[in-house]
Amino acid sequence: MAPLSDRVIAGDPRAIARAITLIEDEAPDGADLVRRIFARTGRAYLVGVTGAPGAGKSTLVDRLIVGVRKAGQTVGVVAVDPTSPFSGGAILGDRVRMQAHAGDDGVFIRSMATRGHLGGLARATGEAALVLDAAGKDLVLIETVGVGQDEVDIVRTADVSIVTLVPGAGDDVQALKAGIMEIADIFVVNKADREGADRTVASVEAMLSLQTFPDGQWRPPIVKTEATTGRGVAELLAAIDRFRAHTAPALGGRRKARAEYRVRELMAHRFVRHAEERVLATGEFDRLLDRIAARETDPYSVVDEIVKRTVR
Amino acid sequence: MAPLSDRVIAGDPRAIARAITLIEDEAPDGADLVRRIFARTGRAYLVGVTGAPGAGKSTLVDRLIVGVRKAGQTVGVVAVDPTSPFSGGAILGDRVRMQAHAGDDGVFIRSMATRGHLGGLARATGEAALVLDAAGKDLVLIETVGVGQDEVDIVRTADVSIVTLVPGAGDDVQALKAGIMEIADIFVVNKADREGADRTVASVEAMLSLQTFPDGQWRPPIVKTEATTGRGVAELLAAIDRFRAHTAPALGGRRKARAEYRVRELMAHRFVRHAEERVLATGEFDRLLDRIAARETDPYSVVDEIVKRTVR
Repeated sequence: MAPLSDRVIAGDPRAIARAITLIEDEAPDGADLVRRIFARTGRAYLVGVTGAPGAGKSTLVDRLIVGVRKAGQTVGVVAVDPTSPFSGGAILGDRVRMQAHAGDDGVFIRSMATRGHLGGLARATGEAALVLDAAGKDLVLIETVGVGQDEVDIVRTADVSIVTLVPGAGDDVQALKAGIMEIADIFVVNKADREGADRTVASVEAMLSLQTFPDGQWRPPIVKTEATTGRGVAELLAAIDRFRAHTAPALGGRRKARAEYRVRELMAHRFVRHAEERVLATGEFDRLLDRIAARETDPYSVVDEIVKRTVR
Repeated sequence: MAPLSDRVIAGDPRAIARAITLIEDEAPDGADLVRRIFARTGRAYLVGVTGAPGAGKSTLVDRLIVGVRKAGQTVGVVAVDPTSPFSGGAILGDRVRMQAHAGDDGVFIRSMATRGHLGGLARATGEAALVLDAAGKDLVLIETVGVGQDEVDIVRTADVSIVTLVPGAGDDVQALKAGIMEIADIFVVNKADREGADRTVASVEAMLSLQTFPDGQWRPPIVKTEATTGRGVAELLAAIDRFRAHTAPALGGRRKARAEYRVRELMAHRFVRHAEERVLATGEFDRLLDRIAARETDPYSVVDEIVKRTVR
């Protein structure tokens, strides 16, 4: 059989699924795979979608898939659920969602749950997006639940960031405004048929009006959608296209920042593993932790010592 | 003047504030300070409070402060807002909140906003809690907004984790249940006077009933509160006390796991800084990123090379 990387590049769905599992498991084969496919990446456009739980993101993403397919483009979805430590539920969810696009090779949907520490999820998400990119998907949608730092990090790695709100979440808009202001390229008010939709739009508008947008700077538009009926989805796709055209000259810079984040994060991961596997004796790390717990030493002194023994 | 560490240990509020700022700024003096005060920590009981935005956590925490003070204990609060990149708003909020406890030296409240990458916020939060611990606060409340991985990490570092829900957030309970199931030691249904409070209690109860709790294992209780009136706050404090007594034998293990997370995270941070400051030539990191962007190389190969040059 052809190597996995070749089959991924050929767009084989089973190879894509296998590749993402390797990445999720942090297997060494996953790193090798990313290395092999990396030269074939950089063509897909990455769309990040986040928002509070219950904002209807999955339904919205499904509608976007339909719209993108109608326009003749292929699409891959990485659905990240940082709150779910159980992959069983995620896999079941994928099956249900994939059924809506059954028999369409131009669509690939994959959920990822929380793994590891130190930004492991953001790394895995970024690499899953690389796999879909290398597999020739024109658009890669990264969908995540929540509005914490992890989601901000994930969505920041996309080429465009969409923040989804729902009517009647006035408190939320207030509570989240600073973080949202920073990452949203496009706001979506979903479930726009609900009471209070115009009020939600008005409060986002009020937030935006506090900021100045110099000539030529993108001002995040607010798009009203009803994901269940599909209303507003065409407008959202048009807003994504406008943003893409507007930011095309700066895309290289945004992607370089993304590479910087990824490299730094990967360095951290490798260094710690190296110290634990090659520098510390068996059981030594555990004994040091016991000494910290007993207040015989402190975390900084322990780390100083480990670093000194590990670096040249 | 006495060294900052001595003044922190003496409980001087201005010294505590200064110490937390050093930690927040990731200043080398902050690390020195933690080293100096570390032997004086481990006495405070750490209470983590999280939940979706708008769940009324701040009001609830304020009520807990009053209850704790009535019981004759001192209290420190670290209010983490991962969605707010602006400390200005946080500081203003602190002033408003502190006024409620003006003139009471037994209360110290401090907000922290998002800083840096690689778990920087969880690290800073943990160290701020150490400062309040060393300063002699009996209870340290760590309050955070959200239910993403970052909040889970923060709350996990506490001795007891409280998850706050509000009625009418049925979708949320469903969406979040996996993550919540994992971290909650106590559930609070706040705004319990609202319609649907009993339904929210019932759905948490339904979730819990899916799990088996062997004899002797803690089963998270569900406490109904109305933070605005103070109803249920005494019950919540009683639940915290019960949990504390129940888990006292295992507290050492929980704290050791916390130390492990902290040490690993600190190692990562130090290694990356070492590589960037001492191993890579000026401008080299940037040139490597350009080569990645141009697809002349890939992140894994770059990291392999940097790690090889950095470690012994």
